[in-house]
Amino acid sequence: MSHLRQSSSPGKVFLIGAGVGDADLITVRGLRYVMQADVILYDRLIDPRLLDHAAPTARLVDVGKRPGQSASQAWIQRLMVAEARQGLQVVRLKSGDPFIFGRGGEEVEALIEAGIPYEIVPGVSSALGVPALAGLPVLHRDYSSSVSIVSGHTFTPALLNTWAALLQQSSTLVILMGMANLAGIACGLQQAGIAPTMPVAVSRTGLPEGSCTVLSTLADIAEAACEVGAPAVIIIGNVVAWKQRWERGEPAAELAWMAREFA
Amino acid sequence: MSHLRQSSSPGKVFLIGAGVGDADLITVRGLRYVMQADVILYDRLIDPRLLDHAAPTARLVDVGKRPGQSASQAWIQRLMVAEARQGLQVVRLKSGDPFIFGRGGEEVEALIEAGIPYEIVPGVSSALGVPALAGLPVLHRDYSSSVSIVSGHTFTPALLNTWAALLQQSSTLVILMGMANLAGIACGLQQAGIAPTMPVAVSRTGLPEGSCTVLSTLADIAEAACEVGAPAVIIIGNVVAWKQRWERGEPAAELAWMAREFA
Repeated sequence: MSHLRQSSSPGKVFLIGAGVGDADLITVRGLRYVMQADVILYDRLIDPRLLDHAAPTARLVDVGKRPGQSASQAWIQRLMVAEARQGLQVVRLKSGDPFIFGRGGEEVEALIEAGIPYEIVPGVSSALGVPALAGLPVLHRDYSSSVSIVSGHTFTPALLNTWAALLQQSSTLVILMGMANLAGIACGLQQAGIAPTMPVAVSRTGLPEGSCTVLSTLADIAEAACEVGAPAVIIIGNVVAWKQRWERGEPAAELAWMAREFA
Repeated sequence: MSHLRQSSSPGKVFLIGAGVGDADLITVRGLRYVMQADVILYDRLIDPRLLDHAAPTARLVDVGKRPGQSASQAWIQRLMVAEARQGLQVVRLKSGDPFIFGRGGEEVEALIEAGIPYEIVPGVSSALGVPALAGLPVLHRDYSSSVSIVSGHTFTPALLNTWAALLQQSSTLVILMGMANLAGIACGLQQAGIAPTMPVAVSRTGLPEGSCTVLSTLADIAEAACEVGAPAVIIIGNVVAWKQRWERGEPAAELAWMAREFA
């Protein structure tokens, strides 16, 4: 776009969710902005093939934070503002959706404070997209009436009690950033009153490491999923039993029984 | 695709989330399948401009259910199966995401039982996409640690207590299909112990009716949003206060104070 602008014209920042898994799970609008960007500030977990669609003149900046590395969110925000102030069209490309544990809210604050125009382009969040790609509906009339998306990065007894209450009301619990704490969460939920047989799935989607889904129970998931590395999504609830039954090819009558049993 | 196939070759069903709001918020993969489909079975709430991308030879079938009309989910499922059995590439196009109150799970069951190959293409759910397009992060480190997506179609005292417990733990509550019950839900949450000042947003995105977002409180939202018709998304939680403050242009120090106050 740069040839269309004076250097004095204001730039703009596009906070874009790249979606999950493959590059073509970004939205059409998101891809169009990627193609038109002067600068792309991208996260570690995006599909790198998305960057092949950038203009040949676009600058590509890896601002991905590695686990254990002290990341500087403030630095990313200053960079975004500085680039836009030069009149550039800046794409901030995030895995999943910018507002689902993506710190998009903080980036919006920085942009508002600096007076930079911005636009949000939502993406398919890993919380919903990863189970969907695994063929696992997080909501289903007969199995689950709501879905809660939580972070497993830290957990407290109070949080575990809330999660247990949700599960007891047939809610599906989707835990992001929880792989490092999987054993502790599984144990804590049992202590909070959830049956060891409660179905649990661990699923990851994406390249280059490939996709996999492990179906198990609260009692066994930590061992069953020990070879599934982060980032993976943990899904707990009766809908996982739905998936287990269908994978085994059991008939609908059995499913209805399971639904009643777990309700 | 039809010219590439023998009539004896098996068809396939693509359950596609069309995303929210504008046509270009479908995923690139979803749009590609729309363009290649032999038959498109589409819902009432999709952006009709998506259908402009269908092949000239594609058959477009409106299977949308109108509120109050006794819809036949079973009929839709039979139609999907029948079309695929003719060797056709069938796109089942749903607003938002197929698995977020979209009855995608039931359609998958019908396809598995009939032995029809299928593929899920997730979309940006209205639950997360509508707030994002309104500039409202449903998660924010300082305001909200989790988000729960629930249906407001029916509610019980037990459900209201669970929702209240979530709000008391700084969760964001996103209610879909709740506009007809907005007054009752707002009243019930106050009876369950949530302060009348708890911030609430009602937001709708999309054409042809246009987008709007009303920011208010639990005490006042039913009146404030009385002119916002369904389908709209109800967002309850501290993140709405974040949005209110930024709209008023209040400084970050005030925001931090609000975060503590509502925590």
